[in-house]
Order: sequence, then C-alpha cells, then structure tokens
Amino acid sequence: MSKPIYVLNGPNLNLLGEREPEIYGSSTLDDVRAACEARAASFGREVVFRQSNHEGDLVSWLQEARSKAGGVVLNAAAYGHTSVALHDALKMVSLPVIDCHLSNPDARESFRHHSYVALAAKGVVSGFGVISYELAVEAACRLAAD
Amino acid sequence: MSKPIYVLNGPNLNLLGEREPEIYGSSTLDDVRAACEARAASFGREVVFRQSNHEGDLVSWLQEARSKAGGVVLNAAAYGHTSVALHDALKMVSLPVIDCHLSNPDARESFRHHSYVALAAKGVVSGFGVISYELAVEAACRLAAD
Amino acid sequence: MSKPIYVLNGPNLNLLGEREPEIYGSSTLDDVRAACEARAASFGREVVFRQSNHEGDLVSWLQEARSKAGGVVLNAAAYGHTSVALHDALKMVSLPVIDCHLSNPDARESFRHHSYVALAAKGVVSGFGVISYELAVEAACRLAAD
Amino acid sequence: MSKPIYVLNGPNLNLLGEREPEIYGSSTLDDVRAACEARAASFGREVVFRQSNHEGDLVSWLQEARSKAGGVVLNAAAYGHTSVALHDALKMVSLPVIDCHLSNPDARESFRHHSYVALAAKGVVSGFGVISYELAVEAACRLAAD
Amino acid sequence: MSKPIYVLNGPNLNLLGEREPEIYGSSTLDDVRAACEARAASFGREVVFRQSNHEGDLVSWLQEARSKAGGVVLNAAAYGHTSVALHDALKMVSLPVIDCHLSNPDARESFRHHSYVALAAKGVVSGFGVISYELAVEAACRLAAD
Amino acid sequence: MSKPIYVLNGPNLNLLGEREPEIYGSSTLDDVRAACEARAASFGREVVFRQSNHEGDLVSWLQEARSKAGGVVLNAAAYGHTSVALHDALKMVSLPVIDCHLSNPDARESFRHHSYVALAAKGVVSGFGVISYELAVEAACRLAAD
Amino acid sequence: MSKPIYVLNGPNLNLLGEREPEIYGSSTLDDVRAACEARAASFGREVVFRQSNHEGDLVSWLQEARSKAGGVVLNAAAYGHTSVALHDALKMVSLPVIDCHLSNPDARESFRHHSYVALAAKGVVSGFGVISYELAVEAACRLAAD
Amino acid sequence: MSKPIYVLNGPNLNLLGEREPEIYGSSTLDDVRAACEARAASFGREVVFRQSNHEGDLVSWLQEARSKAGGVVLNAAAYGHTSVALHDALKMVSLPVIDCHLSNPDARESFRHHSYVALAAKGVVSGFGVISYELAVEAACRLAAD
Amino acid sequence: MSKPIYVLNGPNLNLLGEREPEIYGSSTLDDVRAACEARAASFGREVVFRQSNHEGDLVSWLQEARSKAGGVVLNAAAYGHTSVALHDALKMVSLPVIDCHLSNPDARESFRHHSYVALAAKGVVSGFGVISYELAVEAACRLAAD
Amino acid sequence: MSKPIYVLNGPNLNLLGEREPEIYGSSTLDDVRAACEARAASFGREVVFRQSNHEGDLVSWLQEARSKAGGVVLNAAAYGHTSVALHDALKMVSLPVIDCHLSNPDARESFRHHSYVALAAKGVVSGFGVISYELAVEAACRLAAD
Amino acid sequence: MSKPIYVLNGPNLNLLGEREPEIYGSSTLDDVRAACEARAASFGREVVFRQSNHEGDLVSWLQEARSKAGGVVLNAAAYGHTSVALHDALKMVSLPVIDCHLSNPDARESFRHHSYVALAAKGVVSGFGVISYELAVEAACRLAAD
Amino acid sequence: MSKPIYVLNGPNLNLLGEREPEIYGSSTLDDVRAACEARAASFGREVVFRQSNHEGDLVSWLQEARSKAGGVVLNAAAYGHTSVALHDALKMVSLPVIDCHLSNPDARESFRHHSYVALAAKGVVSGFGVISYELAVEAACRLAAD
Repeated sequence: MSKPIYVLNGPNLNLLGEREPEIYGSSTLDDVRAACEARAASFGREVVFRQSNHEGDLVSWLQEARSKAGGVVLNAAAYGHTSVALHDALKMVSLPVIDCHLSNPDARESFRHHSYVALAAKGVVSGFGVISYELAVEAACRLAAD
Repeated sequence: MSKPIYVLNGPNLNLLGEREPEIYGSSTLDDVRAACEARAASFGREVVFRQSNHEGDLVSWLQEARSKAGGVVLNAAAYGHTSVALHDALKMVSLPVIDCHLSNPDARESFRHHSYVALAAKGVVSGFGVISYELAVEAACRLAAD
Repeated sequence: MSKPIYVLNGPNLNLLGEREPEIYGSSTLDDVRAACEARAASFGREVVFRQSNHEGDLVSWLQEARSKAGGVVLNAAAYGHTSVALHDALKMVSLPVIDCHLSNPDARESFRHHSYVALAAKGVVSGFGVISYELAVEAACRLAAD
Repeated sequence: MSKPIYVLNGPNLNLLGEREPEIYGSSTLDDVRAACEARAASFGREVVFRQSNHEGDLVSWLQEARSKAGGVVLNAAAYGHTSVALHDALKMVSLPVIDCHLSNPDARESFRHHSYVALAAKGVVSGFGVISYELAVEAACRLAAD
Repeated sequence: MSKPIYVLNGPNLNLLGEREPEIYGSSTLDDVRAACEARAASFGREVVFRQSNHEGDLVSWLQEARSKAGGVVLNAAAYGHTSVALHDALKMVSLPVIDCHLSNPDARESFRHHSYVALAAKGVVSGFGVISYELAVEAACRLAAD
Repeated sequence: MSKPIYVLNGPNLNLLGEREPEIYGSSTLDDVRAACEARAASFGREVVFRQSNHEGDLVSWLQEARSKAGGVVLNAAAYGHTSVALHDALKMVSLPVIDCHLSNPDARESFRHHSYVALAAKGVVSGFGVISYELAVEAACRLAAD
Repeated sequence: MSKPIYVLNGPNLNLLGEREPEIYGSSTLDDVRAACEARAASFGREVVFRQSNHEGDLVSWLQEARSKAGGVVLNAAAYGHTSVALHDALKMVSLPVIDCHLSNPDARESFRHHSYVALAAKGVVSGFGVISYELAVEAACRLAAD
Repeated sequence: MSKPIYVLNGPNLNLLGEREPEIYGSSTLDDVRAACEARAASFGREVVFRQSNHEGDLVSWLQEARSKAGGVVLNAAAYGHTSVALHDALKMVSLPVIDCHLSNPDARESFRHHSYVALAAKGVVSGFGVISYELAVEAACRLAAD
Repeated sequence: MSKPIYVLNGPNLNLLGEREPEIYGSSTLDDVRAACEARAASFGREVVFRQSNHEGDLVSWLQEARSKAGGVVLNAAAYGHTSVALHDALKMVSLPVIDCHLSNPDARESFRHHSYVALAAKGVVSGFGVISYELAVEAACRLAAD
Repeated sequence: MSKPIYVLNGPNLNLLGEREPEIYGSSTLDDVRAACEARAASFGREVVFRQSNHEGDLVSWLQEARSKAGGVVLNAAAYGHTSVALHDALKMVSLPVIDCHLSNPDARESFRHHSYVALAAKGVVSGFGVISYELAVEAACRLAAD
Repeated sequence: MSKPIYVLNGPNLNLLGEREPEIYGSSTLDDVRAACEARAASFGREVVFRQSNHEGDLVSWLQEARSKAGGVVLNAAAYGHTSVALHDALKMVSLPVIDCHLSNPDARESFRHHSYVALAAKGVVSGFGVISYELAVEAACRLAAD
Repeated sequence: MSKPIYVLNGPNLNLLGEREPEIYGSSTLDDVRAACEARAASFGREVVFRQSNHEGDLVSWLQEARSKAGGVVLNAAAYGHTSVALHDALKMVSLPVIDCHLSNPDARESFRHHSYVALAAKGVVSGFGVISYELAVEAACRLAAD
C-alpha cells in the first residue's frame, strides 16, 4: 500500500483561526487536517498530521519521514525564514517536499521573503489559505515515487 | 456563464521542451495548454492561453483581463524578476492572480529570488512542472468571484 | 513656428482614472492631454501626446523627439525605475526633458525611489496629479531653446 | 481579581549572577523574581515567572498568556535577535508586552541591535539590571486592560 | 483673505548667485523672492520668505506654518538629505508642502539621492533654477485648502 | 541636597498632543513635566525640564548637566537617529543617562531603528507614552550616585 | 555551406554616430555592418545584421539563431544590464555568443558594470569601437562548430 | 582524576553516514564516538558524547559542562550559523571550546560562512571528516587546565 | 597685510581637556589656540579662533571666511561625519581648507570613518593632538594664495 | 620601426595547460606566446612576453612599457580583481592597454566580477582561450599610435 | 619514501614571538618548525618549512608543492584574507592543503572573517597557537595519498 | 644620537612628477627626499628614504624599522587600501607611524576611502603634495620617544 503524506506544521499554527484572521483566515488546524485527508484520499493515501512550536521536533519528524512517508507537505511557518537546521534535514530527504503557506510571504514584511525551506524544497504553494494545503497534498501525491 | 481563466506566459516559454530540459522538463507549451484546459473544464471554465516575449504585451493582456477574465495564471518568466510595469498592472487587477512557475526559482540563482509579480499576486505555485499550472488553474477557479 | 512639446506616457497610464484612484486620482489620460494642451497653448506651442506599454516605443519616440520637439515631458511610469535604455535615449536628447509623475514616488515603496530617468533629465515634477503635467509642460516650454 | 503578569525569561538567564557579571550584574534570577513580585504586588497583581533555554517553550508560554495574563514582561535574551517565531507569537497577543533586558543591547555587538521582539512589543525597558524588570512590570501593570 | 505661502530656504542659499554658479545659476535669493511673490500674487496670495543656516530654525518655521500658512515651499538644501527632524515636523503639517530645488539632486552625488523631506512632502519640483520656485508656488497655491 | 534630574526634550516635542496623536498620544509637554516632577519628588529630587528644536542646544545642556545634574532623561527625538554630536556629548557625561521615547521606534520606519543616543546611554525606556518618562525618571533617580 | 553569423544590436544603436560621439565614436551602424561583413567573409561566412529598441525582439532573434546561425555577436546595449529575459534566451543557445560593446562598460557608471549577457555568454569584446565588432565576429567564426 | 571532554553534536548529526555522504563521508556517529574516546584516552581522559536536534538542549549541555568538563568539542551543525543563544552560552564557559566540523563550511554555501560559535570559541578544526573530531579532542585535552 | 587663518571648532571641543582624555589628551582649547597663534605668527599671520555646538554657526563662519580669511583649519568634530550642509559650504570656499582632528577617526568606530568635510577639503591632518592643529595651520599658511 | 607589444601575464599563468584544463584549456604559455607573435607579425610588430607571480613585477613592467611599448596586452589573472597598484600603474600608461583573459570571469565566482584593470583599460577581450590573446594583440596593434 | 609536508608561512610570521604576544603567544617560528617536524616524524615524514613576506613567493611555493609534497600546511597570515592569487594556486594543487592559524581569525576584526584560502582548502585548524600547526601537520600526513 | 625617520614609499611613487601631474604635482621623488631631509634636520634627525613596487618589501622595511627608526612616515600608495599585511606589520611597530599622502584620497574614487594603514597608524597627513611629507616628518620627529 502507498505510504502516507506527512503534513508538518510549525510554530503558532496550533492557534490557526485565532491568529491574525485578516491574514490567515478563520479556518482552524483541524479544518486544515480534514481538507488534507480528503485530497490525499482521492489519491489513495493517508495523512500524518502534526504541529509543534519546537524547531527540533520538525527536524526529527523530517528525519522520520525519510523512510515512512511518500511525500511531505511542510509549513514551517516562522522557522522557514531562519532555520538552517530544517534546510539540512530537507537535504537528506529524497522524497518530494512541498513548502506550503496559508498567506503569501512575498507580499508581507521583507524578513519573510527569504526561505531556507524553499531553497531545499521541490516546490512552493502559498497564499490560498486552506486551499494551499489541498494543492500541496496533491503535488506531494502525484510526485511521490513509492 | 463563468468567465475564462487567462493563462499568460512570458519570454522564452514558447521554446518549452527544448529549453534546458533538466530544469524545465520535456513538456511543450501545447502540453501545458491542454493540462490547463482540462483542469479548468472540471470547474466549468475555459482558458485563454497566450505567450509573448514582449513585456508590454503581458502588461496589455493583464489590463484586458480586468474585465474579461475570472482569474489569471501568470508565468511571467524572466520578467517576473525585473518588471515593475507588470507589478503595477497586477495592482489594477482585482481578480485572483496566481504567480506560476515550472521550476522553483528559490532553488536557482539569487537574481531569481526576488519577484515583483509575487509581491502583488494572490499566491504562488512553483516547482512541479506542468502540475504547477494545473494547481494554479484550480486555485484561480476556486478563488474567482464572478 | 515653435516646435511642439512631446508628452510621453509609459505603461498602465492608459488606465488612468481606473487604476488605484486613491494614489493616482480620478482624472483620465484624456483629461491630462487637455490640461497639457491648454498650458502649452499659453506659451504658443502644441502638444504631441502618446502612451505605450512597450519600453521600446518610448525609446523610439524619444529618438524621434530629438529633431521634432521643442521639449519633452516624460512620465515613464514603472520603466523609469528599471530602464537603462530610456536613460541612454535621454542622454542623446539635447532638449529639456522633464521627468513627470502624478504621485510622489519618494513617498511610496523603496523600489520607486531610484529613477534612471531622473538621473538624465533636466528636472522633476511629481506628486500633484494632473497639475504635475501642467507645471512640467510650462517648464518644458520656458526652457525650450528652439 | 486581576490577572497575573507573566515574566518570561529566555536562554542562559538561569545562570544569572554567574554569567559575565561585568555585563549582567551579580543578582540571580531569584532576586529578579522577588523584585518583580514586589512591584506587581504594589499594583495588586501576582507574577508568573518562568525560564527556558528552548525557543519553543517561550512560544507556547506566550500563547498561554493570551487568556491567562494581564500583561507580559519578556526577556527573550538571545532569541530576541533571531526568532521570527516569537515575533509571530507576539502578534497574536493583544496584551501589553514589554521587551525587557538587563543590559543595553544597543551598546553591545552589532548583532544585538536588531530585535524581532521589539518590532512587535508595546515598548522596551533595557540597561538597568534588576531595575529593568521592576519598571517593565510597572508598565505592564499600568497598561493592562483586564 | 487667503493665508500666505511660506517659502523656506535652508543652509547656504543666502549665497545664491555666488555659490557654484554652473550648478545653481546666477540668480540671487532676492530674485527668487521676487519670482515667488509674482506667481503667488497671480493666485491672490502673499509670500513669507525666509532663510536660515540652522536646522532648528527650519523646524520652528514649519511648526509656525501649521496655523499661519496656506501652503509651504521648502528648499531644505543639504538638510533635506539628513534631517529626520524636518521629516517629523512635516508630518505634523497638514498643509501641502512642496519639496523644491534649484538643481536636480538625482543627477548629482549619490548622497543627494535620498531625501527625508520628499518622503513626507506632497510633491517635488526640482532642476529648473528659479523656475522651480515659481512652479512650486503655483502648486502650493492651487493645492491649498484654506 | 540631591542634584536635580535633567529631562531634555528634542525637536517637535513642543507640539506634543497636537503631533500625530495616534502615535504620540494626547498628553502635552506640560503633562509630561508634571509626571516627571511627581516621580522625581518621590525620590527626593527636583527636575530641570527643557525643550529645543536645535541640536546644538541639546549638546550644550548635556555639557551643563555634567556638573549640575544627578542624572539625565533624554528624549532626543529625531536627533537621536542622526546626531553623532549628541553621542559625543553623552560620552563625556559620567552620570546615568536614560534614552526615553513616547513611542517605540523599533516598531516604526527603519530609519528610526538606529540610535546614536542608545549607543552611549545607560539604558532605554520607550513605548509607553508619558509612562516612559516616569519610569525613566525613576531609573535616573535610583542609578544616580551623587 | 557555413551558417551565417547573427549580429544583433539593441536599443539606441540605430543612432550610432549621432549618440554621444565622445563615447561611441563617429561610425554609423552601417559602417559597423560593413566591417562585420568583411571580417566574416574572410572566414567564409555571411552576416545577418539587425537592430531593435525592443527587448522582446532581441529575445525572439536569439531564439531564431538557435537553428539558423553559426554564431552570434550580441551588443544588447542597455538591455545587457537589466534583462534576465535575454540571459534566459542565451542559456538556450548552444552556439558561441559573443558579448560585444563599442565602449568599455567597466570604465563607465557603476550600473553598467553588471551584465546579464556576459553571465551567459562565451566571452566578451569591448572598448574598441568598430574594431570590437570585427574581433567579435572573428571569435564567433573560429568558435563556430557547424 | 581529570574531567571528561564533552563532545556535543547538533541537529541531523544522528543521521551521519546516511546524510549526503559525498559531503559528510560514510562514518556513523558511533564511529565518531569511538575515535573521540580513543584519542581522549591517550591523554588520560574520558568522553561524554551527546547529540540533539534541539538548540535548547545544546545550550543546557554547555551550561552543564561549565563545572563537569575539562574541555568541550562542539559540532553545532546548522545552529552554529544562526544561534546567538549558543554564542551566549559559550561566553559563560571558561573552558577551552573547540568548534568542530566534518566538512569545511567556508567551502560551501555562503550562509555557512558565518559562525556564532567560532566567534566565541577557542579555535576551529574543520574539513577532515572523523579526523576533525580526533584533532579537536586532542586540542581540548592539551588546552584543558583542570 | 596677509589675511588671518580661521580656526573653527565644532561641538564638544569647548570641553577639551575634560572629555575622554585617553583619546583627546589633556590640553584645553586655549592651549590649542595658543599653539595655532604661535605657528601662524611664524608665517606672518594671525588667527581667528572660534567654537560652537551649532552646525549652523559653522556654516555661517565658513561663509564669512570666504572674503576675510587666507585659509581655514576646520575641526568639525561630530558634524564632519553627518553634515552635508558643511560640505556644501566648503564647496563655496575657494581658500585652502584643512580638515583637522586631535585623534585619528579612522582608528575609531566605523561611523567616524566617513567624512563629508574630508570629501570637500584640500587635505587632512589627524591623530597628533595639539600638534595636528599646528601642522594644519602651517599647511593653511603655505597654501594660502592671498 | 614600430615598438613591440608587451604581453604581460600574472600569477599562476606559468602553469597554463596544467591548471584546471576544463576552464583554461590545454594550451601552454608557450603556445600563447607563439600565437601572439604570429598575430603581431601580421601587423609588423614584435612581442615582449613575460610572466610573474609577483604583483610588484607587473607594476614595474607596466612602468617600463610606458616608453618602450606600442601597446600592452595584460592578463593580470587574480591580481586584476584586487590590485589598486596595477590600476594606478595603468593610469600612467597612455598607450592602449587591453585587459585579456582566457576564460570569461563574469561567468565564474562573484569575486571575479570586479576588475581594477578593466576600470582603467582601453577595452576587454575574454573567454576565448588562446584566441583571446590573438584578438587582444590585434586590438593593441591597430590602436597603437607610435 | 613518503614525500615531505610543506609548511608555508606568510607575512610577519618571521617575527613570531615578538608580534602581539597576547594574540600570538611567545613561541618563535623555530619553535613552530620543531613542533611540525616532531609530529611529521611520527607519521614517517619530513617537513619543508619556509616563510616569506611576498605574496608571489607563496604562490610559487604552492606551485612547487604540486609535485614535491605529500601535503601542505599553509598559514598565509594576512594574505589569506585578500589573495585571489593564492586561491587560484590552491585550486591547482590536488594535495590536501590545510589552512592553519595560530589565533582564531573569526574571533578578531571582521576583515579577518573572510578567507580566500579556506574557500579552496581541504580544512581549517586555528586558534591553538603552536598546537594548531601540530594538528594541521597530522591532518596533512593522514590525508596524504602518495 | 637620535634614530633616523624611515620614509617608506609604495608602488608607482618612483614615477612621481610623471604620473597624473594634475593630481600628484610635478615634484619628483628626489624633491620629496630633499624636503624630508630638511625638515628632519631641523629636529636633529636623518632620514632613511626608500621606494618599492612590492608589498612584501614594505612589510620587511617596517619590520626593520622596529629597532632602527625613531619614527616612520609611510606612503603606502595603492597598497594602503588593500593590504592587511601592512596593517599587521604596523601593529608590531611601537613607534609613531604617520600615514602620508600627496593627494587627499577621501576626495577621489570610493575605493580609496578605506585605508588599512590609517586603521593602525598614529595619524594621517594628506592632500598637500610635498608639504604632506614635511608635516608628516615633523609629526614623526616630535612624537618619537627614543
């Protein structure tokens, strides 16, 4: 059977729906999980869905994904802009990794224009709220080679 | 009836399939057009599909899209990195505009990391070859408000 | 008889009145033309008034102005910030060229603070909407030496 | 009854009194706690006082403070200079947050001159050793709106 | 009756006519005053005309203009490039303020390309010698709302 | 008897209450003076309270404070960002000098992020309106060694 | 028979001989064409010689050269400094492309020191007026592999 | 008896041998541990050997080393480039700390050229694979002063 | 008779001898004046010696020197690093102006490495305490052309 | 009789043919000398051909060339990027000096994009291996004025 | 028999022991030579030990090492920060080259943080005084492949 | 008897009088020597006067000066802007070293504004032609402590 898609979420995304709704919308992280599961199911895959405020957890989960996932959707949030550790972890993952954002970082403050994740990812989907996740899951499913 | 999605392509994309295939893949621009039409059709929309090597043509087409399109998928290619004129044209378009790329510019030379298009677009899809266009068309269809 | 003043307009100015009215005001490009003609007439001159979205057209019109115009009012819009080609064309024009803007670029995004046109122009008038053009036309008429 | 003031301390502050005393003074973190409690008491409030070397802990505690605190005094120490995650967490906190430092970072190495915390905080108190905390607690108490 | 236009001149402009005439021309500051008065008169206004080498004087005069002037023409000369104090004073003035220069700073040394005054002004007129002042006075008169 | 605290205010602060109230609040400079005097009195000290739009006056007053003050609260306003002269004057003052601001400069335009005053001051209090002054006066009183 | 050498000229070169003769000399573009034809003839090749003020035309001609030329001499003039589109077009051309200039851009303004064309070209010949073209044509002929 | 040498390893080093072997070689972290123990033994010391993906753990272990170690070999991996917190922790350690790397960061991407660890360390050994650790352990042993 | 040498001193130099003696030495400004007079006398000239904390005063004195001085020794102190106004005033002075410093600014903080005065001065003497003034006065006397 | 062309070669060029042949080709410096002599002979000139690893030797040879050479071909290799001394020497040479490279520095590492030699040379030929020298010798011969 | 290790020393190292002993220690260059010989001997190799103040000598010695050495220890001192010529010479050496320093350049002035040598070397050992050389010699011996 | 003053001259100064006389004047290096000897004699000292185009020679001469000179006047010419090696040599010289220039580098190209020599020198004299040397020799004599 096909391996699952890992959908990994970084700091502050646990508050989705409460955090600056004019930027991030009113959906909660559970809504995001449901949308991801639905799209993955249409490609015959399940989803492993996690969130942490700790950079180290994201690093460890990416390491775990190396053998257990068919593809990865990563919304590293703030850590995407500053974490060389995530960049290095991505370099070890030969699966397709999709850099995913609810909002469009290029249209926000300049310190959000650089991304260590995008530098090492297969591609980027950003700016469409929950739809970003759905499209990213589709990309991960179709590019998965397991 | 729903308005069409404008899919606008910038310089050198007419040579798709011949140009640096290790970066851009072997699909041709006709393959891209077909994929866009299929995805749009599943949302009940048609596609207006164009390519030009002239920055001014892209500006004019974006102006035209203001009244005639339901959404825009724009792969401005090289002009995305340098064109303030496209940026200004996008500012006048109240439709959802999706910044779309075959490859992932963030993983290439540093002069491809800045994008005047992304700065003014709704969101970004990049790095998945023809799949980028399909996902971008879906985003445009679902975000269209006509 | 005195030569006319060339009033040359760059990309997106054809949509004047529709484009971001909180920045550019509600006057149309025809309003601008009429105001320019009136002010020029008070100095016994006519106006040649053009607009294009193509950088190359502006270059060619500046070349044409070398022998046919008494002075030039140039609102290069977005191309003013990026076009070395316009800068080079201006260097060949010995007439007074006035860099003209509806809004004040220095009070907007930082990528609008640099101008290759201002670098090579006689002077600048910006920030007063249609009045900018009127004052620029007066400057061109009074500084013309034909 | 009034909600408490959260006083949150970042990496290495657990060694206060031992660490570079010529910069940070000889008071310990317990001395700081006592001083905070005294000042808060004079405004009828209690103090929740914590320290962690983990960026993620500080993020989670700021999230917790959203509903449980009347105000926050945050000495993020080294993380203040590098953490976009803390910045994002602060953006979600509608309480007054005071950026607090024992020493004056502007008078030290240049990599301490930028602060992602200050960018999102209500205000700053720095440079006075333990007194910095006392004044920051007062500011938090007086600006609290619960 | 209409309020006067304040025409305020910064450092070294008292030597106009003597200072680098190849850049600034041979007109004196009295010539400038006369030209300003003539143009203002055609709009039914008088002119208050001053010069100082002290940054603080310019700040104070701008404060005074808040209640007494219909508009301001400010040639801050060298202080325009370095004075945040003038910038702050301009922010408090709700009248139209015109940033005015005899020469075109964009065509000179790079340290003249930045202007704290332009950042906060309504618009800019530069490069036409005495004519710059005349056009700036017209702009101030027509934009005045008293 | 203890020496007074010098509270020195820079350009445009004389208009406090009128100037951009959404940033600076509605208190006047007289309100600030009263609040400073009250807090100083609780430490048995008086206040010498002055304002000038001239950088040179602030330099001279700092020189005077060397022998006559017990501590200094300095809100240099705009000059704090540009004045090496104030920096040098501070270097000669062995008293505690507190860099004080009504608003939080780090949360405003980037040209307000650098401070020559903070570089040479004992510490910083910013962002709390009039309360900033009160806390700064307390810091000055408690750190004074006369 | 051998394929021709494409000699492509960018904006403002149509005015050669009239434009800033102290920099570009008094030869006209027809003189340049004749010199190119003579040198190419000595290597048994013909020349296809074109000029345009439009960036898009140069892109299209480079695309055409891919199958029809033995080598390319490109004087992109101003577009060489700003055009990523030309850079991308060059990347698709497997022929030898020579970056050619009448003057020496490195000895002029700093914005002429960067070249997107040189980044992707086989080599550079600059600074010798018409002789630059002759040498560039020789290089193209000798390096051509058809 | 002599205190042990702490050998502390940062993020992703747990995957040594699997991660980009063309850069990091095929040795595992257990191989590294064995080599460190052998070299330390030749100087009569033991090794405390740890790895974590969490920045905060490395900070805490450095704090622990202050009293328990004779010297420290620190391969902070990605955190070395971004962690001011590690820098601050190092500042509190009066033992010799050796900044150690398997590969040579100066020969890789530019974001690996800056090191907050090197800034505060006694010295650097990099580029020799497992041999780097052996030499670093020797340096720590010989420079230890307990 | 020969015109005098103007020796003009900027902010904080009135405290010479008290200000950071490890940098500026223990001589007072009166000592400097005496040394200048002695050296000038040996060239048959007198000295006009002044000090001000106001940038505007230095500008006005430089203007006065244009007709009354044979040469100028200017120690603008802090204003030398920030004052475009002084730079502009110097540009109007055709006399030899010597940029003079007690200490060597190039060996101090980086914000002292740039000098708007040096940019427009005849030459520089710095680093020798009072001797700097003596040598600068000699240079002014010998280069004076009146 | 005509003066010779000096062909001067900088550091590491003595190893030509052995050094990174994928960049520099397999020709030796003797091959280069022969090609230069042949081309010079066709213009009736001889060649003085030298190589040194010492920057000072290149400076001295350029000084010697002032009276003895008809033109200079200079491949300063690495010193071209760093040597102000060569720049100054070139400024004293009124002969045509051609900056010559085997490879195209603009297509290599960014620290090879700046050239102090190109800044002061008549023109540049780069990227064609031995052919670069031949073309440079021709340029030197045709531009020589002796 | 095994080839020797070349230990090459750059400018000012001949004064070792006299030069800033608080940074470089009191050992002389002869002490360094002895320590290198001892460590090399334990690996069955001899040492060729040289010093020069001339950049060109270091370039030539590196060229010589290509055929005669088993490995190279290079302390280029000041030239390491500025010499592209050394960088190029290193690129031609297929032996292991160790970049070696007595002190830790990363902990000193910022102009010592960049190294053209480290960019092209196998690895780095710095900061341990004479011990740096010993460890570097060991690395060279163990990595040598002759 | 007093030790001599070393006057050391860098690259291209051997051509003084021939090199760009509009910048450097028409005096020869022998004239400079004579002027130095005269001024030194008035302080009872002799002069050791040398010139070299080799950076290494200047380094070695500075080393020699440590024991044999009473002071040093160094005109490093172009090497002053690029040579860390000279900077390091200066750091070892406890004598007064005067950084001396014929012209004023701050008034020339921006790459002449930085000086590694000034950073480590006692002081600077520049801009007065031969007089610069005379004043520098006086400074060296008066500050010499032997």
